[in-house]
Order: sequence, then structure tokens, then C-alpha cells
Amino acid sequence: MRGVVMHAPRDVRVEERPDPVIEQPTDAVIRVSVACICGSDLWPYRGTDPIDRPTPMGHEYVGVVEQIGADVRNVAVGDLVVGSFFASDNTCEICRAGYQSHCVHRVPMGALGTQAELLRVPLADGTLVAVPGDPTPAQLRGLLAASDVLGTGWFAAVAAAAGPGRTVAVVGDGAVGLLGVLAAKQLGAERIIAMSRHADRQELARRFGATDVVEERGDAGVQAIKDLTDGLGAHSTIEAVGTQESMMQAIRSTRAGGHVGYVGVSHDVELPGQELFFSGVHLHGGPAPVREYLPALIDLIMTDRIDPGAVFDLTLPLADAAEGYRAMDERRATKVLLTL
Amino acid sequence: MRGVVMHAPRDVRVEERPDPVIEQPTDAVIRVSVACICGSDLWPYRGTDPIDRPTPMGHEYVGVVEQIGADVRNVAVGDLVVGSFFASDNTCEICRAGYQSHCVHRVPMGALGTQAELLRVPLADGTLVAVPGDPTPAQLRGLLAASDVLGTGWFAAVAAAAGPGRTVAVVGDGAVGLLGVLAAKQLGAERIIAMSRHADRQELARRFGATDVVEERGDAGVQAIKDLTDGLGAHSTIEAVGTQESMMQAIRSTRAGGHVGYVGVSHDVELPGQELFFSGVHLHGGPAPVREYLPALIDLIMTDRIDPGAVFDLTLPLADAAEGYRAMDERRATKVLLTL
Repeated sequence: MRGVVMHAPRDVRVEERPDPVIEQPTDAVIRVSVACICGSDLWPYRGTDPIDRPTPMGHEYVGVVEQIGADVRNVAVGDLVVGSFFASDNTCEICRAGYQSHCVHRVPMGALGTQAELLRVPLADGTLVAVPGDPTPAQLRGLLAASDVLGTGWFAAVAAAAGPGRTVAVVGDGAVGLLGVLAAKQLGAERIIAMSRHADRQELARRFGATDVVEERGDAGVQAIKDLTDGLGAHSTIEAVGTQESMMQAIRSTRAGGHVGYVGVSHDVELPGQELFFSGVHLHGGPAPVREYLPALIDLIMTDRIDPGAVFDLTLPLADAAEGYRAMDERRATKVLLTL
Repeated sequence: MRGVVMHAPRDVRVEERPDPVIEQPTDAVIRVSVACICGSDLWPYRGTDPIDRPTPMGHEYVGVVEQIGADVRNVAVGDLVVGSFFASDNTCEICRAGYQSHCVHRVPMGALGTQAELLRVPLADGTLVAVPGDPTPAQLRGLLAASDVLGTGWFAAVAAAAGPGRTVAVVGDGAVGLLGVLAAKQLGAERIIAMSRHADRQELARRFGATDVVEERGDAGVQAIKDLTDGLGAHSTIEAVGTQESMMQAIRSTRAGGHVGYVGVSHDVELPGQELFFSGVHLHGGPAPVREYLPALIDLIMTDRIDPGAVFDLTLPLADAAEGYRAMDERRATKVLLTL
């Protein structure tokens, strides 16, 4: 089969890889319908995260089940399925508490590489959720978003305690930040402030439910949030970048007793203990337990109540994956969908 | 009046200070009945926090109202009252959300110095809570504990989401950690693991509700907690020290999706972003909004359902305050009560 392999920073190739096979009785093999490129794929692409050998890429996927292991019960051959970027058993104590991304048996799907024609999915019963009915093209894009960026934005909004009566600030205008806006809206937030300086992303943020846009960053961004909230700061802040600046911007934009939900993968972040202590905020985040939200998200998508697939602003065939990486790296695209 | 003044590290004196007077119509002046020495008073005593001028000491107090300003309505002359270490208006949006220690008009009582015969209390209506009835000596000690260490331990247990079915680990066996044990018990925790290597504190922890004691610290302490929790870590961890080691011990002792409530005043703490991200814990803490809990705590104390005053293991007259500081510094006492 063909799949995307990164050989070095900025060296992305589509090449022949061995077809995956059922290795464990709990595995499934799916034929990938659509995959995509994640903002986090840019960390190795830009050389921030090391690559020490040719690495299969991708961790987001929607596909059709082609084979199942002897112990698989919850999905059948022919099912259209969505999964998260961590395979999880969905039965351990951590999963049952809603933290499937920390499942005691978790497997990172990024290690398997979903930007490929075929994909082995470990722990298929706990990982995959079958889609009811035949999705429209827009719904299919939405389902792909649910696999990571929507689920991650949703978790961030939940972690930030977004809800009725609350003002939510969103740091980061990538796909996750934008879908954090959508999630905050669905969770009933009263006011949603998107922090963005890109006109196209501002527009999408407003379409997803943002009531205000702040273009400033850093201290000026914090001040702008305070100016909009009687000097107190937001009740809830979503952090969807992962840098020192964005984390501090999120913490400082939040009132005492408020909540910061952070989902940008931390890179070289050190949180000053004393400032955090006196901030009085709640801090929660990490790799999102997308599997927890998938059934509800699939339902919202298949009934057209949300359109998270709108974050995909460039669609390319798998063969052109390298151009997709370039487009995201150069910020010509927010999120690239790969067709197979 | 006489009051405690710290002139330099290890130089604590009881000396004549000006009698406080009503400065604002919202002030009260109280005659202090009992005060005490806090673990945090040891930071300047040991030279960790700088002292640049002679500094009145103390922020915990129970007393009798002696004068009130023209606008004070909620307490009357002659009332026995308890307050927190932050004066707060209890009416602003932050107070109403339960975060009085971050009140937009807060005044740190430590700046006024409660280890003294008389004390001016700003924002008396929002700060002071009148005690119903005449406390016994044990109840009076409990009320003094409520002023900070009990309220702080309680907040830590709430921030750590201690409750039914949950295993709570407590890092730190000072008065706050011990009263965190008491709070976790009151909140219904199933299992409470006190981390302590002092026999007398272990005994008090068990009396307050600890079901297990772990003597190990650092990595060995974390492993001991994991061994007691099926390898997963505690649901809830109370951090009541404030050092890098204790914070990391608390975070690493907690399972993904669990909660760390941290109330040890942070000293030279830097939290590594990536480890925190992948830990998946909730982190909340800071200066405790003791005022939020005071009415309920006073009720628990005055009905003898809790005996938090048991943390005081040395009682001295105000004149001997210097000996009290020495005893706490040398760990001959957990918590020193000063009588007036």
C-alpha cells in the first residue's frame, strides 16, 4: 500500500509500505477513506521534534473496516468507522473515568501512520465507533475532524469549564482553537473571544460562534481580554498552541477561580510555580480523550447540527501529501484533508 | 499595645506597637483572643523570604470586636469573631464565585500583623464571621485553626476533588497537610494516605482519618502511592509544602484525570510543561478562600464534629513568641498557639 513517510524535516514522501495485517485478535484493519495533516505534524516537519528514522505519518482517520481479529465484537467488516489518535481498550479504570487517551493499554496511532491506504487499529472494540448511515461529503469531513481536532477542541472547552453564563477566551486560531470555539458555543458559553490576527480564521471563528475577536498577543492580548471582562479576565480559557507565550497568555487571561483548558502539545514550557499559585486558576489539559466524546460528536455531525469539517480549507490526494505539509507550514492552509 | 515584630531572620521580638484605630468606615478593631504561628512565617524566619524592615507578624486570629466603623453591619461590639488571612468584601464577582482570597479589594492580614493584642480588620462585614455561643477551650483552638490551616486544608481537599469512592494522597505533614486529611475524611474520601515520617504526626493523621501512612518521599513515595492504587496513582492529591520536590511528588502520585489541590506557597517551583501535559491531571490551588468555608467550619467546630485544634501542640503566652518560632523552626512543635 501507499503511505506518507517523513524522512527528515521538510522531506515528506508518499511511498510503498507493507500492507498491515491483523496481529492481535483485538485488531482491525481498515481501508482509510480520508486522513489529514495535523498541526502537531509540523513539529517534526519544522525540525522542532527530532526524526531519527523514516517515520510513517498521521494519526487522524475515517475508514471502512476490511478485516477484524477473532475477538472483535463492536465493529464489523464494511462498517464506516472513526477512531481517536490513541487506541484504547475503553474498559480499564482510567477509560471508564473518561480518560481514554491515558488508557493503561493505549497505543498511539501516530506510531502506525494513518496517512496511508490501509491502517491497523489495535483494541478495535474500544477504539472505533461505527457511523450510522452514509455521510454526505461535508459530514465525512466533519467525521474526520472528530478524530482529533474537534475532539481535542471539545476536551479543551470541557477542561476550561465552558458553559452558560461564561466568557471563554481562545488562544490559538488553528483548527483546534477554532473547533474549541465551536465546542464552547455548543456547551452554551455566553461570550466567546477568539484570539486571531488572520482574517480568514477570524471569519471561521465567528461562523463557529465567536462573539469577539482580539488581535493582540502576549501582554497586550491579556489586557484586551481584561478590558472585555470588567478587568477580571475570562472565566474559561482554551489554550491550543503549546508554547511558553501561549500558556502564559492563557493563564494570565483567566480570572482567579477560572479554568484553563490546555491542549497545545507543550514545547519547552516551564510554568512559574509562584505565579500559577497566586493566579488561582484551574489548569487541566493534555492529550484529549477524544474517544469519550466520539459518539456524541458523530451524532451532532450526522444530524448537521455542527459543521466542523469547515476547518479543512485544502483537499489533496494522498499522492500530493508533501504539498499539503508545505501549505500548512507556510500557513497557506489551516488544515489539509487527504483523499484516498 | 504589644505585638510580634520580626527584625531579621531568627530575630523575633514582642514589642510595643501603636494601637490600631478605625481608618475606614468598613473597618473593625478587635481584641485578639488567640493567634498563632504559621508554617509560612518560617519562610522569612529562615531567610528564604527577605525582610527589608521590621515586620509585624501573623495572619491568623480569633478575637472580640472592640470598635466598628460607621458602615459595619454584620458584626457588633462584643462579638467573638473569626476571619481569614485575606480581608475581602465578600460582594464582588470573584468573592461571589467563592474565591474571596482573590477579592478585587482584598487586604492581606499579614501586612497588619495578627500576633498582637489589637488588630484592625478591613472590610469587616465581608471578612469576619461571628461565633454563636461560648466556645470551650478546645473549640477556641479549633476556631483559630479555621482562620487559616483548617480552611486551607479544606480548600486543598476540595481542589483535589476529595470525596466518596476516592483515594486521597496528602503530601506534607504540617498543620495544613494534617487538616487536609481531616477535610478529606469529612468530604467522604474512601482512603486517605498520609505521607509522613514523623511518628507524632502520623498518629494525628490517623486520628484525623488517614487509613494509610507512607514514609517514603520523592520517587520512592510516588511508587508507594502507585503500589497502593493498582499502579494508577491517587484520584486526589493534596500538596501542602510548596517545593519543587513536593509539587512533582504530588503530580506524579496522581492518576490521569485525577486532581491535585496545591496550597503550599510555591517557592522556586518550575513545572515542566510537557510532563504536566502528559500527566493528564487537574491542577488547582493557591491562597485558600477560607472565608468561603468559615461558616460551615465554625458550625462543625462548635458542634464538636471536628477537632482541628488538635494540631496545636504547643501553647505559649504572646510574650514568648520567639520561643514559639524556635520550636516550629526546630520541628519541636507542629503548630504554636499564642495566648493573649
